[in-house]
Amino acid sequence: MEKVKSVASFGGALQVWRHDSAATSCGMEFAAYLPPQAEKGGAKLPVLFWLSGLTCTWANAAEKAGFQRLAAAHGMIVVFPDTSPRGVNLPGEDDAYDFGSGAGFYVNAARAPWARHYRMFDYASRELPELVFSNFPADENRVGVFGHSMGGHGALICALKCPQRFRSCSAFAPICAPTRCPWGEKALGGYLGPDRESWKAYDACELAAGSAFRGEVLADQGGADEFLQTQLHPEFLRESFSAAGIPLRAREHAGYDHSYHFIASFAADHFSHHAKILSA
Amino acid sequence: MEKVKSVASFGGALQVWRHDSAATSCGMEFAAYLPPQAEKGGAKLPVLFWLSGLTCTWANAAEKAGFQRLAAAHGMIVVFPDTSPRGVNLPGEDDAYDFGSGAGFYVNAARAPWARHYRMFDYASRELPELVFSNFPADENRVGVFGHSMGGHGALICALKCPQRFRSCSAFAPICAPTRCPWGEKALGGYLGPDRESWKAYDACELAAGSAFRGEVLADQGGADEFLQTQLHPEFLRESFSAAGIPLRAREHAGYDHSYHFIASFAADHFSHHAKILSA
Repeated sequence: MEKVKSVASFGGALQVWRHDSAATSCGMEFAAYLPPQAEKGGAKLPVLFWLSGLTCTWANAAEKAGFQRLAAAHGMIVVFPDTSPRGVNLPGEDDAYDFGSGAGFYVNAARAPWARHYRMFDYASRELPELVFSNFPADENRVGVFGHSMGGHGALICALKCPQRFRSCSAFAPICAPTRCPWGEKALGGYLGPDRESWKAYDACELAAGSAFRGEVLADQGGADEFLQTQLHPEFLRESFSAAGIPLRAREHAGYDHSYHFIASFAADHFSHHAKILSA
Repeated sequence: MEKVKSVASFGGALQVWRHDSAATSCGMEFAAYLPPQAEKGGAKLPVLFWLSGLTCTWANAAEKAGFQRLAAAHGMIVVFPDTSPRGVNLPGEDDAYDFGSGAGFYVNAARAPWARHYRMFDYASRELPELVFSNFPADENRVGVFGHSMGGHGALICALKCPQRFRSCSAFAPICAPTRCPWGEKALGGYLGPDRESWKAYDACELAAGSAFRGEVLADQGGADEFLQTQLHPEFLRESFSAAGIPLRAREHAGYDHSYHFIASFAADHFSHHAKILSA
């Protein structure tokens, strides 16, 4: 693991790291914000994993979301993974904004040629957390996950599939049911193949009933989000979580769109949500 | 004046506007953040003009600085001008990051071919404020100016040359004396011509002694800023302001660089600085 750079931010440091990933069989970059409380030899801190949306790298949220101020205030580490393998030279990997590079969907691909590298579920839910616990003062018993859009769904499935790893979960404008929206159908079909039954292992609404995750989930949507009706479908999440008995605080904010301005506007509520659960 | 877009942010709206500028003889875009207090028919609000640095448009600060949260908390309008005319087809305008497009330096050019369009001092200090007072609930008696790097110097000369317009002033990593650093010598030589005497009308350190501005100025520098010794020279500002009797709160923050992470980290102090002066 090699440090690419470190930038002072709100009394702590935003660090960018590069490492060889076993999960994705390629080099990966991620950023980690270490708040001022992350002193050598001090107590271990809670850690949040942020999963970004389509087209993003670690940089979008690290530059635009305003998380560092909140992480410093709460004494939390925040880790920003990339959204896909990069530069692995698969045919078509850069042809679309919603498939391939920047669009790993936090699933383990099962289909050639994607299966060799596109294993972002294992990367985000297991390999990267282990790397973080080994290299930063992060408390592996106080781990949360949150994200935006594709990454909001990524956060939901990480929590639902790995409740022993992720104790807290929240999402901004999540895709709620990828088996039932165009972005999801394209991604799951492309990475997993045509058997729609196999897609259910990566659909939050399908996973809810069988999950042991029982923390309250906070999910914010923007009322003026252009993707709300076509891709996100918050009603599917409300229905499935209600049926599964998973507490859901679902909010819709009138006038807000799908951008980082929406995320920044409500980030404080998400940090409070995670801090409350992780400090309990 | 035509609204390009409006995005909800922290209970208010980040709006982007396009208009024909008389000062620059071309179309210009700017952004304005209207906090939730900017209701129709309500009281007029204080307004801050943010002047960005080299290569920026209105977007950089609007996306990365975290100002909207603070503007909403203080009930202030923030206006983000562009940093130069755009698309005016002057030979060489796009050849360098530090001259021409994105590098107007907030001066009125006196030399062909720049003099026709590159009149960013008039634009930022007079035309745009008038436009803002006419179109937004902005109080023309409570106006501040702040900026970064090239724009930090722009803020200083706006305040020093127009103390009746700008009552409060602060700067992040300002170029302090453009007549004595490579960025400034290139810009002033290019826009004004070889007569260095003429450059003094756009050098904060030269202007200090003759200025009627007497508010305290807040100026932050990053201790790890790669441009600190070569381009910024905060010692020149301390010397000239001290000699002129202008109160200066000059801070150096160990470890911080020249980026928006530095700006975001100390933005709250700048808003408090302006709010205190403008509410007095």
